[in-house]
Amino acid sequence: MTIKVAIIGCGTIARSAHIPAYLKNPNAEIKYFCDIKPEAAEKAVQEFGCGQAVVNYRDILNDPEIEAVSICTPNDGHASIAIDFLRAGKNVLCEKPAARTYAEALEMQKAQNETGKVLNIGVVNRFNKGVNIIKNMIASGELGELYHVYASFRAQRSIPGLGGAFTTKSIAGGGVLIDWGVHFLDIVMYCSGDPTPKTVSGQAYCKLGKDMENYSYLNMWAGPPNYAGTYDVDDFITAMIRTEGPSITINGAWAQNIGVDEMYIDFLGDKAGIRLQYGSDFKLYSAQNGALLETTPKFNMGDHFQNEIDGFLACIKSGEKLPSHIDTVIVTAKILQGIYDSSDSGKEITFE
Amino acid sequence: MTIKVAIIGCGTIARSAHIPAYLKNPNAEIKYFCDIKPEAAEKAVQEFGCGQAVVNYRDILNDPEIEAVSICTPNDGHASIAIDFLRAGKNVLCEKPAARTYAEALEMQKAQNETGKVLNIGVVNRFNKGVNIIKNMIASGELGELYHVYASFRAQRSIPGLGGAFTTKSIAGGGVLIDWGVHFLDIVMYCSGDPTPKTVSGQAYCKLGKDMENYSYLNMWAGPPNYAGTYDVDDFITAMIRTEGPSITINGAWAQNIGVDEMYIDFLGDKAGIRLQYGSDFKLYSAQNGALLETTPKFNMGDHFQNEIDGFLACIKSGEKLPSHIDTVIVTAKILQGIYDSSDSGKEITFE
Amino acid sequence: MTIKVAIIGCGTIARSAHIPAYLKNPNAEIKYFCDIKPEAAEKAVQEFGCGQAVVNYRDILNDPEIEAVSICTPNDGHASIAIDFLRAGKNVLCEKPAARTYAEALEMQKAQNETGKVLNIGVVNRFNKGVNIIKNMIASGELGELYHVYASFRAQRSIPGLGGAFTTKSIAGGGVLIDWGVHFLDIVMYCSGDPTPKTVSGQAYCKLGKDMENYSYLNMWAGPPNYAGTYDVDDFITAMIRTEGPSITINGAWAQNIGVDEMYIDFLGDKAGIRLQYGSDFKLYSAQNGALLETTPKFNMGDHFQNEIDGFLACIKSGEKLPSHIDTVIVTAKILQGIYDSSDSGKEITFE
Amino acid sequence: MTIKVAIIGCGTIARSAHIPAYLKNPNAEIKYFCDIKPEAAEKAVQEFGCGQAVVNYRDILNDPEIEAVSICTPNDGHASIAIDFLRAGKNVLCEKPAARTYAEALEMQKAQNETGKVLNIGVVNRFNKGVNIIKNMIASGELGELYHVYASFRAQRSIPGLGGAFTTKSIAGGGVLIDWGVHFLDIVMYCSGDPTPKTVSGQAYCKLGKDMENYSYLNMWAGPPNYAGTYDVDDFITAMIRTEGPSITINGAWAQNIGVDEMYIDFLGDKAGIRLQYGSDFKLYSAQNGALLETTPKFNMGDHFQNEIDGFLACIKSGEKLPSHIDTVIVTAKILQGIYDSSDSGKEITFE
Repeated sequence: MTIKVAIIGCGTIARSAHIPAYLKNPNAEIKYFCDIKPEAAEKAVQEFGCGQAVVNYRDILNDPEIEAVSICTPNDGHASIAIDFLRAGKNVLCEKPAARTYAEALEMQKAQNETGKVLNIGVVNRFNKGVNIIKNMIASGELGELYHVYASFRAQRSIPGLGGAFTTKSIAGGGVLIDWGVHFLDIVMYCSGDPTPKTVSGQAYCKLGKDMENYSYLNMWAGPPNYAGTYDVDDFITAMIRTEGPSITINGAWAQNIGVDEMYIDFLGDKAGIRLQYGSDFKLYSAQNGALLETTPKFNMGDHFQNEIDGFLACIKSGEKLPSHIDTVIVTAKILQGIYDSSDSGKEITFE
Repeated sequence: MTIKVAIIGCGTIARSAHIPAYLKNPNAEIKYFCDIKPEAAEKAVQEFGCGQAVVNYRDILNDPEIEAVSICTPNDGHASIAIDFLRAGKNVLCEKPAARTYAEALEMQKAQNETGKVLNIGVVNRFNKGVNIIKNMIASGELGELYHVYASFRAQRSIPGLGGAFTTKSIAGGGVLIDWGVHFLDIVMYCSGDPTPKTVSGQAYCKLGKDMENYSYLNMWAGPPNYAGTYDVDDFITAMIRTEGPSITINGAWAQNIGVDEMYIDFLGDKAGIRLQYGSDFKLYSAQNGALLETTPKFNMGDHFQNEIDGFLACIKSGEKLPSHIDTVIVTAKILQGIYDSSDSGKEITFE
Repeated sequence: MTIKVAIIGCGTIARSAHIPAYLKNPNAEIKYFCDIKPEAAEKAVQEFGCGQAVVNYRDILNDPEIEAVSICTPNDGHASIAIDFLRAGKNVLCEKPAARTYAEALEMQKAQNETGKVLNIGVVNRFNKGVNIIKNMIASGELGELYHVYASFRAQRSIPGLGGAFTTKSIAGGGVLIDWGVHFLDIVMYCSGDPTPKTVSGQAYCKLGKDMENYSYLNMWAGPPNYAGTYDVDDFITAMIRTEGPSITINGAWAQNIGVDEMYIDFLGDKAGIRLQYGSDFKLYSAQNGALLETTPKFNMGDHFQNEIDGFLACIKSGEKLPSHIDTVIVTAKILQGIYDSSDSGKEITFE
Repeated sequence: MTIKVAIIGCGTIARSAHIPAYLKNPNAEIKYFCDIKPEAAEKAVQEFGCGQAVVNYRDILNDPEIEAVSICTPNDGHASIAIDFLRAGKNVLCEKPAARTYAEALEMQKAQNETGKVLNIGVVNRFNKGVNIIKNMIASGELGELYHVYASFRAQRSIPGLGGAFTTKSIAGGGVLIDWGVHFLDIVMYCSGDPTPKTVSGQAYCKLGKDMENYSYLNMWAGPPNYAGTYDVDDFITAMIRTEGPSITINGAWAQNIGVDEMYIDFLGDKAGIRLQYGSDFKLYSAQNGALLETTPKFNMGDHFQNEIDGFLACIKSGEKLPSHIDTVIVTAKILQGIYDSSDSGKEITFE
């Protein structure tokens, strides 16, 4: 039987990823396109030739036909909208990050636990073929003991929508850490077997976008700049995390005065290691018979957004708990919060 | 008037760097080549056609003609030999690291302070043209506020003399951190204006060399391996340091299962940034008129070992305190100790 | 309110540059495509889906709706057509060179001055981001005193349309100097602050295309060759120009028996210098702290044809005098004429 | 019978080129090494194991045994010493340039004509195998009509002996033009068949070395700098020359803020062209059957200094007038003078 779906927030991620995936799934039907900007909702109806436009998501909370909801709004809507739909008996797929803060994420988790409805987070890399190959290699012992992971997500100039929702802390909750870092840390945690974190130390910097008028860049995604807007989020982040598994260090930059883009994760094991180029392929480094081996696997990446949506729809029926469930993903929210707290206090944070 | 010099330890660093530099300085004359291996001392006498061979450095402590001493022994000799010569009224240039531990380094500093003789450490990069250009650029504000420095000293396979002095903790004091990291941290501290450290968090790993027989490698410097020896030092290190200036993160590997050698330091300022390729040139990244600029300086690197030795000899006469003085360099010893202590305790170390 | 435009001449430059830029400007509408070849005008109407085809430009001189005209004909049409439209009260953007001779250019300027209508010349590089960065660097003193500029526009084989309009003096006014040199000299003049020229000495050679049948080439732009046509223009040019600012030397070849294409301009200042690769990026050379610096700027080049057209349309309303105004550009026409005159007389020309 | 020779000036060019060549010629014997610095003369006697040291060249003017003299002093000595030896009945080989000024060169020529003794100038490239191949190709018509020659002798940083004889106008007569340009123009004239010059226009600039203390460089030949000395010569030169043969343009820099060294001569003919890399090999560019040909000749360069000295010694006996005779070479001195005069007056110079 068909699952009727509502899309909340009709921006880029909804239009390029969620909506096409629902349309390709034979068991789903989009009933509502909701956006606080009426023209955005209307545009989606026309572009995709289905559903009806809604401005206020509360108008559809009680539509008994709706079973599933994708939340694709800016971060400040995630917690409240997800909780409202869960309490209205709907199943929710919420874009990453779970929320602006760990406290918000905990409330979302509480609502999930109390309602028993699905609450998955858009940690889409967990549905990526390459990432799952790496996870399996590590789990099967192919890397030996995984002792350290280094994640680099550094770009020379890539601040999104300067002065808009992405760069306003009260809306987004943070900058490069919460926007890019959440993906990188999620891959690290997933591949490492979601180890329990023990300590976090970090420093966040708001530097290159601060003087908005003088920010030099070649192109801007989620642009153009709004010089009358706000820029108060981190554009550089560094952190060190100890877990019950490997230690983890990260360096991330939306913008930096170093002219190289380095987007990769290094998994260091005592038998072998892996460098994963984010969103692309990976290399495996090992040694055998006195030779050093560099192995380049070829595989069909798969459509990870399709897998995410298909999995979400399937688990509504099956009750299966996916790796994107809030109970798993909330650990990353805890780490992000720890990094920001450590940066504010200038001290390491120790988790109980 | 000529300064008479004794060379203590006639290994690679003495023969390739210290001795040739003394021979080129018109005011210096090498009187003794000392090594506990008699054949090493003899070989130096013949190779360089001057001086006399000595086995026990105590035999020359009281030669009134000797004014200056270069200590080029393994790390376990640094503190005791330096202190003996200082107390005998000699001026000392001691190879890096200052000592195996911060406690030893403090005793060396104490002896220097009490005797008033010169005690310089072999932080040779402080005499390198490129490093000094970077230091000047930062001091003059060309980078704006320097907020973070990342140092990467990672090689796939480069453990020196497996099973020998370099890999035995009781001799060397540590592994990749104390051997390579000391140079990288020294450059970071020097260029950043020697800022006071506040916290240190680190993890050291002894992994790839541990199973010595099965360590695969292509070439070994300071080799060959001694499989009957000891391997109990760090071959991977990660750390995060907060200072009164920039925060600093490091990743270092004598050996890792990632097939790239990345030896560089990134200086991140809010106006401009620099990537220094260790032992080579650097690039400056900035922005102007809406363009992103990549600047490659060409300069005559100079002979930094010659500068170091010339500076040492000159300051014996002039009394000038060089940037390689124990009073400055000891801060790096404190940081190294902090990283090892943090790794042992699994917690951040806070300096008073 | 919308500005109605007529395109006079529907060849390559019109179709690839002017027409698309007008179509992208929200305030412009193309009403006429005019070409003496009826099929060329018709083809434009169909290709761009707007406007109507005209053969004789005089038929639209008196259409009161037309406010702006782009002249994209061969050079022999520039002066007469521009003057006719100016006197009919239209604003004109005329492709480079302004005209075949300085005398013609002076008549165009006279018509502009008398009518008060806009007459801009297609010196499109003045709307190029990289060129403007260089101009600003020079104006702000970053190069110190700019004392010499060398422009090289030399190709091994690049005569356009052998035997056609480009190579017939009575139509084009000249060869490589008037076709390529006009762009290079225009950049030199613009970046140098449009200095007043004092003397010109030059030699023009008609050599490699002269024996048309035996001209060897790999590709021909604006081709194919018309062996029944005329070839009586310069394919090599050399000149030296003294100005109140820097001295300038040029070497240019549409064709030469040297197998390298060298298309660049060197700006020599006593503090720094720039080599601009024509139509591409540039490098800045300077010195600091004893190091020689090579700086490579990255920037978004921008669409200089779009900027040119947008600027033309805007200045019709605003009355702003753009750097492409005939009053500025005519100095280059004077220099070109001087070079040809000097070549004919074998003597330096001195301007009053 | 052996020719007895005196070497006047025992600097680099004498010791590296003239003296070894005389020693290899079986018919020559060096009797005197003369230098106003006694230690330089003495050092030559010891280094080469022959001859006797002299301080004042006048002391050997009247030694009847001396037949031949090589003048290797700074430029200010060329004319007076050469004339003194000619009038004393000796044959003279004088290093390039002939003299500081054309007037001095004319007096040298007059003395030669009146005495009938040999006066050759050190235009050593006329004895270079590659240069002679090019000269023969041009003479035989292989390039067709040679219509233009462009000579580039531009280096980023190569001022010799800043503050010394090379950079002091009263001693050297000029800078990069007289020191490097003389060689390039000489090759151009020789290969082109020594055509009669008609007009000269040039500009000389004294820029990058002027502020001596702040001149940045990597290495200095004829160094080290003497900051108390004088720097008043051209470090950049540009000129255009019309002759009865090809037109010629030159750009030369001892120092420039462009980071490429370009040292070549382009010979442009209507059938073929040649790019000669100075001091190295050349490429021939031609066309045949619709193909563009690049030809790289390989040949044994030969020892041009040996050829020069051998030729000098032989012509003393044979009376043959070599291509290095003052009567030929003086035309280049006339051109150099014309360039400097044109630069001073800001106008083209016309020769009668």
